[in-house]
Amino acid sequence: MHAEIVATGDEIRTGALIDSNSAHIADRLEEKGVAVTRHTCVGDDLDYLSAVFTEIGDRADVAVVTGGLGPTADDLTAEAAAKAAGVRLELDPSALHSVEAFFKSRQRTMNVASRKQAYLPAGAQCIRNPVGTAPGFYLKIGGCQFFCLPGVPAEMRKMLADAVLPQIIKRMGKNRLFYRNRTLSTFGLTESRTFERLAGFKKAFPQIPLGLQVQFPAILVKLYARGTQDEQLNEDLAAAVRWVTQKMGHYVLSQQGDPIEKVVGDLLKQKQASLALAESCTGGLIADMITNVSGSSAYFVFGGVSYSNQAKIDILRVSPEILERHGAVHAETAIEMARGARNISNATYGLSTSGIAGPTGGTKDKPVGTVCVGLATPKGASGHRFHFWFGSRSMHKQIFAAAALDVLRRELLGVDPPSL
Amino acid sequence: MHAEIVATGDEIRTGALIDSNSAHIADRLEEKGVAVTRHTCVGDDLDYLSAVFTEIGDRADVAVVTGGLGPTADDLTAEAAAKAAGVRLELDPSALHSVEAFFKSRQRTMNVASRKQAYLPAGAQCIRNPVGTAPGFYLKIGGCQFFCLPGVPAEMRKMLADAVLPQIIKRMGKNRLFYRNRTLSTFGLTESRTFERLAGFKKAFPQIPLGLQVQFPAILVKLYARGTQDEQLNEDLAAAVRWVTQKMGHYVLSQQGDPIEKVVGDLLKQKQASLALAESCTGGLIADMITNVSGSSAYFVFGGVSYSNQAKIDILRVSPEILERHGAVHAETAIEMARGARNISNATYGLSTSGIAGPTGGTKDKPVGTVCVGLATPKGASGHRFHFWFGSRSMHKQIFAAAALDVLRRELLGVDPPSL
Repeated sequence: MHAEIVATGDEIRTGALIDSNSAHIADRLEEKGVAVTRHTCVGDDLDYLSAVFTEIGDRADVAVVTGGLGPTADDLTAEAAAKAAGVRLELDPSALHSVEAFFKSRQRTMNVASRKQAYLPAGAQCIRNPVGTAPGFYLKIGGCQFFCLPGVPAEMRKMLADAVLPQIIKRMGKNRLFYRNRTLSTFGLTESRTFERLAGFKKAFPQIPLGLQVQFPAILVKLYARGTQDEQLNEDLAAAVRWVTQKMGHYVLSQQGDPIEKVVGDLLKQKQASLALAESCTGGLIADMITNVSGSSAYFVFGGVSYSNQAKIDILRVSPEILERHGAVHAETAIEMARGARNISNATYGLSTSGIAGPTGGTKDKPVGTVCVGLATPKGASGHRFHFWFGSRSMHKQIFAAAALDVLRRELLGVDPPSL
Repeated sequence: MHAEIVATGDEIRTGALIDSNSAHIADRLEEKGVAVTRHTCVGDDLDYLSAVFTEIGDRADVAVVTGGLGPTADDLTAEAAAKAAGVRLELDPSALHSVEAFFKSRQRTMNVASRKQAYLPAGAQCIRNPVGTAPGFYLKIGGCQFFCLPGVPAEMRKMLADAVLPQIIKRMGKNRLFYRNRTLSTFGLTESRTFERLAGFKKAFPQIPLGLQVQFPAILVKLYARGTQDEQLNEDLAAAVRWVTQKMGHYVLSQQGDPIEKVVGDLLKQKQASLALAESCTGGLIADMITNVSGSSAYFVFGGVSYSNQAKIDILRVSPEILERHGAVHAETAIEMARGARNISNATYGLSTSGIAGPTGGTKDKPVGTVCVGLATPKGASGHRFHFWFGSRSMHKQIFAAAALDVLRRELLGVDPPSL
């Protein structure tokens, strides 16, 4: 079964908006064993749109279309589908009911423009929209079954999952393939080093495609398997995950693809330990990451962002002599900051960063991209210095934060600190 | 002049990767007055790829293709272009030189696989790649000039700007249109309220399309103008910006589209004032935003993330009685936190947040989505309570952070606090 995806709208066509809907739909379809052959984006133009529908009607078995179902004059998907199918638009009672129900649920009265959304191509079936005003529909054009959904991601995703995918699976019948995937998250090796480590994978698992995806600064290892035997797929994937983990060792953050802040949080919970932060160059990013994990209040007690030296001295109790002797960016200063954060908050661990995120502030000895990480534990303290060469302040902040969390993660695992 | 854009690669086709290249290219082309009519994505398949090139050769004047120029067997763009143009691949001396030069500049020896990248369709012209190994090329297929670029965004962007756009502008000759746009950033009104405020725009400026783009939690108002008279466009846009600003008042953050953290930073710099933060529910996000602005060390002195009550008492010097009486999420507690942050760091302003980002922790009186903001100034202190209804912890953190910064922004402007 071959599928195509269409994204409509001038915002996407002109580049004002990045189309993330098509990737989501492709991912879901491929997961169900449907091969996606092409994505197309066209603007809000009746002739272009209906021409694309006609073409696809000749080429594909299934098409999923997003956008152009709203109440305004430039929402043309229903009209274009009707034109391509050679039918007229008709008021669809079920679609009208869907629009009315939405307004009723919000205790608002339906405006006249919204009534337009209930006009569907003759012969189309309505797909109800439980989240927004615009109903979708499905319709055969040429040899292809079209599913037309709204462009608002939350609405599209819900309708795709609830109404479209089940229908497509039913249509596949006995030809159905099972699709399973697994994602491991890793940190600390470049993409090409990761490739080198995993060089023998293709030979060991010829039936499992492996892909690397950069989710800066982490690298995700993605394993895909497709076949008719569901159980066999799961066993094969489990063996592949073990193989990758054995080759990559502690560079693997999580066999479930978790981000480093979640992995560190889980380790802290296991140890019933708590964490305090003293951030300089990362400017609160580590605290933000840590607190993005629901339940982080169980182990995260305090984070101090000390941009000024005076704040380092007054609040984190860094000794003025050490600041004077080594400067703000130094392993010894980082250790003092980590100790200070740990002491003032009675946390099990104190973690700190001090560095130069750029674009300015670098020196010959401490160029932009330098970061010092301090870690204070119940047993003592350690300082670490790393250097990165990325182009932007925000990339530096991100990799500094990940490097600091990796120092803590490896301490919690009882293994050597990272060499980055 | 009509242009099409093609993104190649199985990662994009299957949805493993979101295609951001096409939006970038569309934006650049439209900016130069080239109308983009369609984007297409196909996978690493020679037949599909060459079929798409042939189709576009019949339809468009210009096409920009990304991806498939690498050294591996699934990089098929050159072969597919040759097939569609009915020519053979040939070793291109200029492309070979480009690849060799890259390896030399990195003091690495060129591997055999990389030599493949120097084979271009006969008659194609090489586009040198100053940033990576894969050279691009341009070639006529049917009636359309194709420009094929690598898929790595940094390489593609550089080659597009340096080599492709100048050629396209040259080809447009006297038909050239000028394109100008302006973006205003706003905060505090919903999308539909913003629409209502700007209802008369179309009548006042029929020649300037206006679009709203949600950059959560901000809303961007985008104004576009296209014409043959560059100066007139700038004047028209300036008048439109004034009109929008007059209608939206202090909901406009910036006439340059700046984010709120940059706007607040600029106001603090103007006043030679400094800022300290005490964050609870926003967990360091405000500090992270503030420090994403280069030069923020001039006004940002300290941020404390106090997730635990003990840290609020010990470090931010919040009175235990107030915590006991009102709880952590209360305007009075927020005021105490803001005062504490201001006092311990000697900052001009102290700003605080305390609330419930969710998904758990809500009560009947203080449901998930409640945030209290405290602001301490040289003249006194104020507390503010807001409630939002978003679906996720991270959206709540983002809008809490923006609401707090908006309290400070309006104080710095000397206008009423936000009503959200």
